[in-house]
Amino acid sequence: MSTFSHLVLGPWHVRAAADRLSGVANRTPVLTSRTLDERTGASILLKCENLQRGGAFKFRGAYNAIAQLTPDQLARGVVTWSSGNHAQAVALAAGLLGASAVVLMPSDAPAAKVDATKGYGAEVITYDRYTDDRVRLGRAVAAERRMVVIPPYDHPAVMAGQGTAALELIEDNGPLDMLIAPVGGGGLIAGCATAAAALCPGITVIGVEPTEGDDTARSLQAGRRVRIPIPRTIADAQTTDIPGQLTFCVNRHLVDHIALVTDHSLIEAMRFLFERMKLVVEPSAAGPVAALLSGRVQLPGKRVGVILSGGNIGIDQLGCLVNAG
Amino acid sequence: MSTFSHLVLGPWHVRAAADRLSGVANRTPVLTSRTLDERTGASILLKCENLQRGGAFKFRGAYNAIAQLTPDQLARGVVTWSSGNHAQAVALAAGLLGASAVVLMPSDAPAAKVDATKGYGAEVITYDRYTDDRVRLGRAVAAERRMVVIPPYDHPAVMAGQGTAALELIEDNGPLDMLIAPVGGGGLIAGCATAAAALCPGITVIGVEPTEGDDTARSLQAGRRVRIPIPRTIADAQTTDIPGQLTFCVNRHLVDHIALVTDHSLIEAMRFLFERMKLVVEPSAAGPVAALLSGRVQLPGKRVGVILSGGNIGIDQLGCLVNAG
Repeated sequence: MSTFSHLVLGPWHVRAAADRLSGVANRTPVLTSRTLDERTGASILLKCENLQRGGAFKFRGAYNAIAQLTPDQLARGVVTWSSGNHAQAVALAAGLLGASAVVLMPSDAPAAKVDATKGYGAEVITYDRYTDDRVRLGRAVAAERRMVVIPPYDHPAVMAGQGTAALELIEDNGPLDMLIAPVGGGGLIAGCATAAAALCPGITVIGVEPTEGDDTARSLQAGRRVRIPIPRTIADAQTTDIPGQLTFCVNRHLVDHIALVTDHSLIEAMRFLFERMKLVVEPSAAGPVAALLSGRVQLPGKRVGVILSGGNIGIDQLGCLVNAG
Repeated sequence: MSTFSHLVLGPWHVRAAADRLSGVANRTPVLTSRTLDERTGASILLKCENLQRGGAFKFRGAYNAIAQLTPDQLARGVVTWSSGNHAQAVALAAGLLGASAVVLMPSDAPAAKVDATKGYGAEVITYDRYTDDRVRLGRAVAAERRMVVIPPYDHPAVMAGQGTAALELIEDNGPLDMLIAPVGGGGLIAGCATAAAALCPGITVIGVEPTEGDDTARSLQAGRRVRIPIPRTIADAQTTDIPGQLTFCVNRHLVDHIALVTDHSLIEAMRFLFERMKLVVEPSAAGPVAALLSGRVQLPGKRVGVILSGGNIGIDQLGCLVNAG
């Protein structure tokens, strides 16, 4: 089944991305938890992309894409749109590669993410998440300023870069029976599933979406991309309303199942990771652990890789979430 | 100068403790931060004892002490008193070694610490931090039940165990110019300074206390143990009113300076570690980073080891601290 998706993205693209990222991205640690293993009956390996540069896996894809631009393109700069983590990643990667960056961010993006993006030297333009068409706005800025668009997920180089998280996890810890990752636009899981399917034949790949943001779950069921109302969820990195074209092309072949998790269970998973593992993760990144703790995903005796996708949440924002939850 | 302190504690005791702890304690990771290095001009190595079993360095000392008891002593069980982290450590270590444990905890100890101690199977007896004499209470319980006292710091085996944190840090990362660690009763820094002085001749050892809990700072200045009123500070692991007899005997020779940090600066350091490094640390553990960020400790170009001593704080408690700060 996976052959068709290789037209878009093959494991060799992920391997090439790993070479580009070597010495630039953090080779993030993999942590385990006795309690998590006891509660699931499995051996859970947590790939800490919250400790990645820029605080999320997004740096991998952004850097892999921008590093492949020509000197002329780099001189003109890059444009993107993002609810936050891809914004920081593009700003950081562009800065490292000597390119200027313009980032469109929703007006309700977490202040920590906006501040960090500006801190990396990018110009930030805000838009309304619920009314503006960020893709059209972004393309207009790119045309006007003759800049290159680095989309947040629907781009082969971006997907290939994200896949290096799973590649490292498997290289450093051995074969997996299951891989669980959050799904927003689908770039992370597309890249990771591509690497994992090549390295661990027969692996089960599970995506996790918030219940209010189940566009990929519905799309996989329908066999075509389904658009939903813009989701309102605390998982601010997963407020996509429709899967990417390219990501869906890969994920329909490589993703076995989508687990849905409530905002409440995301907070409980964040609490678990905070209190038991002393790790800060943002709501979207807690999805796989929420699924594991709620018993929605179970594989006793199996080796399960989890992508802890990011940790970009302010300490005050966490306090609000916990009080509200 | 260090020879005299070797009568109490020598580097060989720390080495023997490391052998006992091998395969039992976590060899905790050492993390770095580009931002922290930029802000201090130094190369800062953070030894993540918040990722130790039981959530703090205390497991090292408790296990090292209990592992040296006779079968008969183990059968009778152990008693201790602690504001929290040593309580959890003794409960966990006793459980692993097949001994029962009774722990006296202050009635205002964080709920997360009390729950965790009970969760490890210990019996918890509460006392009033500001009126009761916990040492007398603990010794009375020990006499009545014929149990062995495992004091929280003033014990050579406890100090030796704590010193393995610095031993590992130096073994894994090479020699240091400076070591910074929080000071409560003084067991952590006594053990760490003993190991560090042996491995890195000429190293500067800096302790950190909350401004309201400066008993060791005053004692070092006076050249004798000085008692202060029971400190009221958010650094709940540093509310000692007088240094230990044995720990002070070591620390007066091996600790070069005590940096004092305010509760406000502890919260800012917790915020930094949370938002920039995605790490959960408790207030006391943030002291060295607070000192570094406030500019009270500076060594441009030097290699500085920091013991991030623990991460036992509830997510709700953190929210309250941040709102109040």
